[in-house]
Amino acid sequence: MQAAVIGVGYWGPNLIRNFLGNNHIDKVHVYDLNPARLEFIKKKFPEINIVKTEDDIFKLKEIEIVVIAVPVDQHFALAKKALDAGKHIWVEKPYTSTSEQARTLNKLAEEKGLNIFVDHTFIYTGAVRKMKELIDSKEIGDILYFDSVRINLGLFQSDVNVIWDLAPHDLSIMFYVLNKKPIAVVANGIANFYDYENVAHISVYFENNCFAHFHVNWTSPVKIRRMLVGGTKKMLLFDDMENSEKIKVYDSGIEIKEKEGIYNALVQYRIGDMYSPKLIATEALTLGVEEFISSIKERRKPLTNGDDGLKVVQILEAAEVSIKEKGKLIAIQN
Amino acid sequence: MQAAVIGVGYWGPNLIRNFLGNNHIDKVHVYDLNPARLEFIKKKFPEINIVKTEDDIFKLKEIEIVVIAVPVDQHFALAKKALDAGKHIWVEKPYTSTSEQARTLNKLAEEKGLNIFVDHTFIYTGAVRKMKELIDSKEIGDILYFDSVRINLGLFQSDVNVIWDLAPHDLSIMFYVLNKKPIAVVANGIANFYDYENVAHISVYFENNCFAHFHVNWTSPVKIRRMLVGGTKKMLLFDDMENSEKIKVYDSGIEIKEKEGIYNALVQYRIGDMYSPKLIATEALTLGVEEFISSIKERRKPLTNGDDGLKVVQILEAAEVSIKEKGKLIAIQN
Amino acid sequence: MQAAVIGVGYWGPNLIRNFLGNNHIDKVHVYDLNPARLEFIKKKFPEINIVKTEDDIFKLKEIEIVVIAVPVDQHFALAKKALDAGKHIWVEKPYTSTSEQARTLNKLAEEKGLNIFVDHTFIYTGAVRKMKELIDSKEIGDILYFDSVRINLGLFQSDVNVIWDLAPHDLSIMFYVLNKKPIAVVANGIANFYDYENVAHISVYFENNCFAHFHVNWTSPVKIRRMLVGGTKKMLLFDDMENSEKIKVYDSGIEIKEKEGIYNALVQYRIGDMYSPKLIATEALTLGVEEFISSIKERRKPLTNGDDGLKVVQILEAAEVSIKEKGKLIAIQN
Amino acid sequence: MQAAVIGVGYWGPNLIRNFLGNNHIDKVHVYDLNPARLEFIKKKFPEINIVKTEDDIFKLKEIEIVVIAVPVDQHFALAKKALDAGKHIWVEKPYTSTSEQARTLNKLAEEKGLNIFVDHTFIYTGAVRKMKELIDSKEIGDILYFDSVRINLGLFQSDVNVIWDLAPHDLSIMFYVLNKKPIAVVANGIANFYDYENVAHISVYFENNCFAHFHVNWTSPVKIRRMLVGGTKKMLLFDDMENSEKIKVYDSGIEIKEKEGIYNALVQYRIGDMYSPKLIATEALTLGVEEFISSIKERRKPLTNGDDGLKVVQILEAAEVSIKEKGKLIAIQN
Repeated sequence: MQAAVIGVGYWGPNLIRNFLGNNHIDKVHVYDLNPARLEFIKKKFPEINIVKTEDDIFKLKEIEIVVIAVPVDQHFALAKKALDAGKHIWVEKPYTSTSEQARTLNKLAEEKGLNIFVDHTFIYTGAVRKMKELIDSKEIGDILYFDSVRINLGLFQSDVNVIWDLAPHDLSIMFYVLNKKPIAVVANGIANFYDYENVAHISVYFENNCFAHFHVNWTSPVKIRRMLVGGTKKMLLFDDMENSEKIKVYDSGIEIKEKEGIYNALVQYRIGDMYSPKLIATEALTLGVEEFISSIKERRKPLTNGDDGLKVVQILEAAEVSIKEKGKLIAIQN
Repeated sequence: MQAAVIGVGYWGPNLIRNFLGNNHIDKVHVYDLNPARLEFIKKKFPEINIVKTEDDIFKLKEIEIVVIAVPVDQHFALAKKALDAGKHIWVEKPYTSTSEQARTLNKLAEEKGLNIFVDHTFIYTGAVRKMKELIDSKEIGDILYFDSVRINLGLFQSDVNVIWDLAPHDLSIMFYVLNKKPIAVVANGIANFYDYENVAHISVYFENNCFAHFHVNWTSPVKIRRMLVGGTKKMLLFDDMENSEKIKVYDSGIEIKEKEGIYNALVQYRIGDMYSPKLIATEALTLGVEEFISSIKERRKPLTNGDDGLKVVQILEAAEVSIKEKGKLIAIQN
Repeated sequence: MQAAVIGVGYWGPNLIRNFLGNNHIDKVHVYDLNPARLEFIKKKFPEINIVKTEDDIFKLKEIEIVVIAVPVDQHFALAKKALDAGKHIWVEKPYTSTSEQARTLNKLAEEKGLNIFVDHTFIYTGAVRKMKELIDSKEIGDILYFDSVRINLGLFQSDVNVIWDLAPHDLSIMFYVLNKKPIAVVANGIANFYDYENVAHISVYFENNCFAHFHVNWTSPVKIRRMLVGGTKKMLLFDDMENSEKIKVYDSGIEIKEKEGIYNALVQYRIGDMYSPKLIATEALTLGVEEFISSIKERRKPLTNGDDGLKVVQILEAAEVSIKEKGKLIAIQN
Repeated sequence: MQAAVIGVGYWGPNLIRNFLGNNHIDKVHVYDLNPARLEFIKKKFPEINIVKTEDDIFKLKEIEIVVIAVPVDQHFALAKKALDAGKHIWVEKPYTSTSEQARTLNKLAEEKGLNIFVDHTFIYTGAVRKMKELIDSKEIGDILYFDSVRINLGLFQSDVNVIWDLAPHDLSIMFYVLNKKPIAVVANGIANFYDYENVAHISVYFENNCFAHFHVNWTSPVKIRRMLVGGTKKMLLFDDMENSEKIKVYDSGIEIKEKEGIYNALVQYRIGDMYSPKLIATEALTLGVEEFISSIKERRKPLTNGDDGLKVVQILEAAEVSIKEKGKLIAIQN
């Protein structure tokens, strides 16, 4: 199989390295608007083939996979062209600029029997896979709340706010591990420097009295990447800034003891042991590429497909409307 | 001067110890509904005088100060009786159950020339005083955002939700260091176990494009007590779980470089040195008692007075309305 | 039973509080050279009886227990007087100034049928008891090494070096959990300010190829209280500066895989899960007082007795000789 | 200039990447005993030239620089051949197996006017350069002690003990920042698995009442890389496991207040502010290569030269003798 990468910014070299490293990929073609960047990449990866125009990629029959790693507002047009040309596509997060675009692409791929892989990389990390395993095994119990913080002093994106930049990671993890339907979204925050918000808080209301919250911030002096999942049996912490012990499982929780009628219900807490499971250390992107290629060979949808991309975009879209109206409640259509 | 403490639960012994330790206090009277608790307290502090009824306190002329340390729904009635009896009052946080009650008490004290001290203890810690000093000196610049997290696995209160229990600490700190007027409040969260929310997120919109957020949670397996203040010049971290280095000042921030017109504005970040100032270690409650007694002697309002109590209660009240309506925007009357 | 406390410095109030709180103790007598200190203590604990002279304590028949909490160079004389007067004794750490003194006291108590309790407080903490339990259960395997660090910026003692001040804690824990015989001691360090060393490193060689090391320092800007125990099966960390998760058990270790003869032996490491057991939170001193009184009632030696005190003093004594001779190897007599 | 790298194990790719990236290097030749490894490296760096035998390197006139990255017992023979062939040499740490070998090489290079660079990489990190700057500026005052810990669960080397593997890093930093003469060495530790020690503690006595200690361990479940430097004015912490804030400067220390004669001297401690300076982030190896090439061009010795290599080897050699004799004091010849 041959793959083509369009756009080689910050993430591009990782994509090229992993597609080159996959046994099923014979050749990797690369295109970028910036000739200097292309030259730099060619020096780093001499075995790649540099193409002159985007259209060369769509025309070349040998190319089965097109990797789209350009700014989000160009995702739809490129993805559509690639699908129209009969290519399977890999799209960086966030999938599209609108849920309408996502639906159009998903439908097109469905009709053409092509695969869409949305690069929700975190789903392929050892930590998130372990979270999923722990929740699916019912060890945590029913999920009460999901709380995520992703803040640091970082590059402002010139085309989107901090929600579109950082929250896709956390939203994709939430959907993967929770497997519940969102009902409504509220977002609050501030744009201190220009039109795009640099601080945002997103609340997501779920069916069955479950609640999630996301704090994203480009202007924090400290770097925090942390998630809490509270369950009826146990509680879970994912701290991605830890060198080891990224996942901790607390045998702690809340117990309700009824004493003569509901009015005397007593809420107590219980603290027990904690353990930190060993995690698989394989690079997430390597596993992502494997999953994409396997899904094509096995003619099935990949783990992180267009439907997953759509779910995340729906929340981003709703959050953007909400934050502009200071926390207006926006319903989510399932 | 003589003082009387009504209610000796968890915080009571600290109050008694600090009033006993103050040079201006000759005698401390104590009352509690629970005779066994009173006996225990008497054994611990043999020099106190146990009174039989609340009314004994209001009648006794020698008592100038009444300390109210009972559940919040009883604050108003007791505080009013004490003011009516001509006593200066010390009220535990949160000040009252409604802003209407707070206004009534403030007006009454004003008319009678009596002092109200609201026990926003954190204001008297070395850490918060240092925060205030750093912000007032303009070292941080204009404040862009204030972010607070206070979560752990803790006792559920039987009469209020997690907002009324934990947020008063953080709201009082915010008002003290920011010195800005709030415009509106949004709150989201969940009540997983009974009527009272155990997880809550409160957004406060301020004048002049400033924003604050508070995360409070009784059901977190990890204990976090942390505040971030982002300024135009520097950024500040207060981590109360650190044994030392509770306050860190980051010479980091955001810079806007305009290049030929606003459309080419470039947002960049800058990372510099960090320093952690030495903090005064005197117990906050000791300084609170001193401030209250000095304010009475000097016939001035104390640092944390009824007006401060009111401001906090206004936000709590608005947050409670908002959280019941899934994040409805509630305006604050200044 | 009645107890008498001689010496009420830093640790004295904790001793008085815990003896007062024990159900079997009817009265606590107190003596100190400093009248002002005695007055302060009397105000804090009105139910104690202040005695005029040390001899009053030895004469009073009702006093069965004498608690010796004075500088170490006075331990022997007071302990001997108390034993001669037929009292059971509680001696603060380090037990005595020399191993000869310790042996004399131990023999005397044996002859008189009296109990000696050496206040190795850490033995009664939840953390150390859990360490002991884990090691005794063979979960850790055979112990390979024991490593301890106890450093901070602390008060210089005016009568002993940092070894005699800080190492007794760690040595007592080591003897308790390891239960092995030491063979020889080496100590190195420096006295930067006056005759007494402020930095010291103590190596203890044990039978069966086991090794322990202790780092103590009064002049470190950071406070560290940490122990590592390496075993053939698992490894154990005790970090006393953690608020929670003080004990961590690592399912990690070393494996030797022989490949065609010893010369091809391959040493590999293995990393597995970690867990942090819940610890009992009862105050160590409370349990120590209980153990002492139970041991008297049951006519048996207490858990931390004169033999344990002697073992620790032997290492301290050897370390002091060694450090003065820049690491000379000093054999330990068992 | 052309360079040749002999040995491309773990560190080899980093060396090749940095020599390739230096502007003054036109070509990089590579040799390794293992053809499969050479093939892998050639695929990774297609622009390198693979040579068939070591001798090809020594014969090729265009090669001015030979980089020796093989096990330490082969350093001397290769380095001597390279110097005899008129090449400047870069030798990985530890420099040689004996101080005698180091002296021979240093003399030979001196006679031939060739440069020896010993790869004490840490000297080129932002953190160590900042430490040096702080100490040279006298901000820390006179150095009282230097304490280093480098422990983790790591690969056992098959040819040397943990001292030769890990301590060169810390010893090179110590010599660089302290700039003092060592007098004697004591080492203690244990070999739990085979002949080579896996835990070691090294004490170094310096002139002027200064003392250093090094703890190295291949069998610790936790990874610690930390140094403390105590000075008469301030204290310094280097924690290499921190993502940011690797260097902390504590305005804390010890003060001696004399009160009527030496016998009443009072030692007190003082705690002040802490700050963490911003560090330069350039890769250490890049700066090392630059320094080596500059030193050749400027016909001067590089910063980390054969003399520095010799100093470190002297301590390693002495420590090995000492540890085999359970802490025997070994004098260092300066």
